[in-house]
Amino acid sequence: MPKLWNETIEAHRAAVRDATLDTTAALVAEHGPASVTMSKIAERTGIGRATLYKYFPDVETILTAWHERQIGAHLDHLAQIREHAANPLEAVLEAYAFIAYEHDAGDPLAAMLHRGEHVAEAQRRLRGFVRDLLAEGARAGEVRGDVAPDELAGYCLHALTAAAGLPSKAAVQRLVTVTMAGLRGPA
Amino acid sequence: MPKLWNETIEAHRAAVRDATLDTTAALVAEHGPASVTMSKIAERTGIGRATLYKYFPDVETILTAWHERQIGAHLDHLAQIREHAANPLEAVLEAYAFIAYEHDAGDPLAAMLHRGEHVAEAQRRLRGFVRDLLAEGARAGEVRGDVAPDELAGYCLHALTAAAGLPSKAAVQRLVTVTMAGLRGPA
Repeated sequence: MPKLWNETIEAHRAAVRDATLDTTAALVAEHGPASVTMSKIAERTGIGRATLYKYFPDVETILTAWHERQIGAHLDHLAQIREHAANPLEAVLEAYAFIAYEHDAGDPLAAMLHRGEHVAEAQRRLRGFVRDLLAEGARAGEVRGDVAPDELAGYCLHALTAAAGLPSKAAVQRLVTVTMAGLRGPA
Repeated sequence: MPKLWNETIEAHRAAVRDATLDTTAALVAEHGPASVTMSKIAERTGIGRATLYKYFPDVETILTAWHERQIGAHLDHLAQIREHAANPLEAVLEAYAFIAYEHDAGDPLAAMLHRGEHVAEAQRRLRGFVRDLLAEGARAGEVRGDVAPDELAGYCLHALTAAAGLPSKAAVQRLVTVTMAGLRGPA
């Protein structure tokens, strides 16, 4: 596997791992999860089957690792937006709504992956992240002060999952506007 | 089965059916779904096993029928509230939030039942019902007019499912207040 060889063993391992996750995601997208086998993943990644088994015991573990990587990327994306946007709260909620919009909740693979423990952990992190933003907003007088930030975080994260069923990006933006009006409270 | 005998065959059948659903729900609540068998259901309902099989082919079908009946009762309850409340929109949304609050979403049986086609149909009915209320509210100037009632229905039904994770009835009422502020829009 010369093309995957990198400067150090660690970097090499990370590269094999990443390549395996990319390959598996591509195979699932092309043929559906049921037809993906360890042999096909090894072949397409360009590694031996025995090598693949040193990294992952089965396809399900690879899919879970891929999903964890996707969720991590989403959380990093939201953290970036928080740091750079002029209006971090609204920008983060909009970005979250677009993630929900692009995510196919009806996909059986998504339904399976979402039952994993790693998802519950990611949801806790996301909720904490949004709660902190809302607490900042309340101190700045931009968010209502009569409801605790944690309750408001639950409200807006649930409201924004409605984006998954919306027909257009304009509709997603309207959903964010309506949700923000709830966070601001009566004028 | 003399105690189940009613004035007509139809009423008798409905009574056996209802008694079977009640019994099954009670057995599931007591011992969990895995230990419930057709024999136990027949015994507790006070009918023969052969009779039970004339009504239902298996335990899963009974549980689905019971769940359909529960959902139907919830929808009837919301329709009653709509007819009699001074402020139908807020009263219906509050009642829906309390249904979500009392409903244990983490229950594996609930998760299984919620994948059924009857649930998708009930969700369509509920959404149509709330959409009509919102359209009335918009005509009366109580609901924002810049977002279509169907989109607002999606928003508020998703927002109110946050009630499932709340610790108290007071928190559920705050969630309804916040959600209503989103529906009213900027003052």
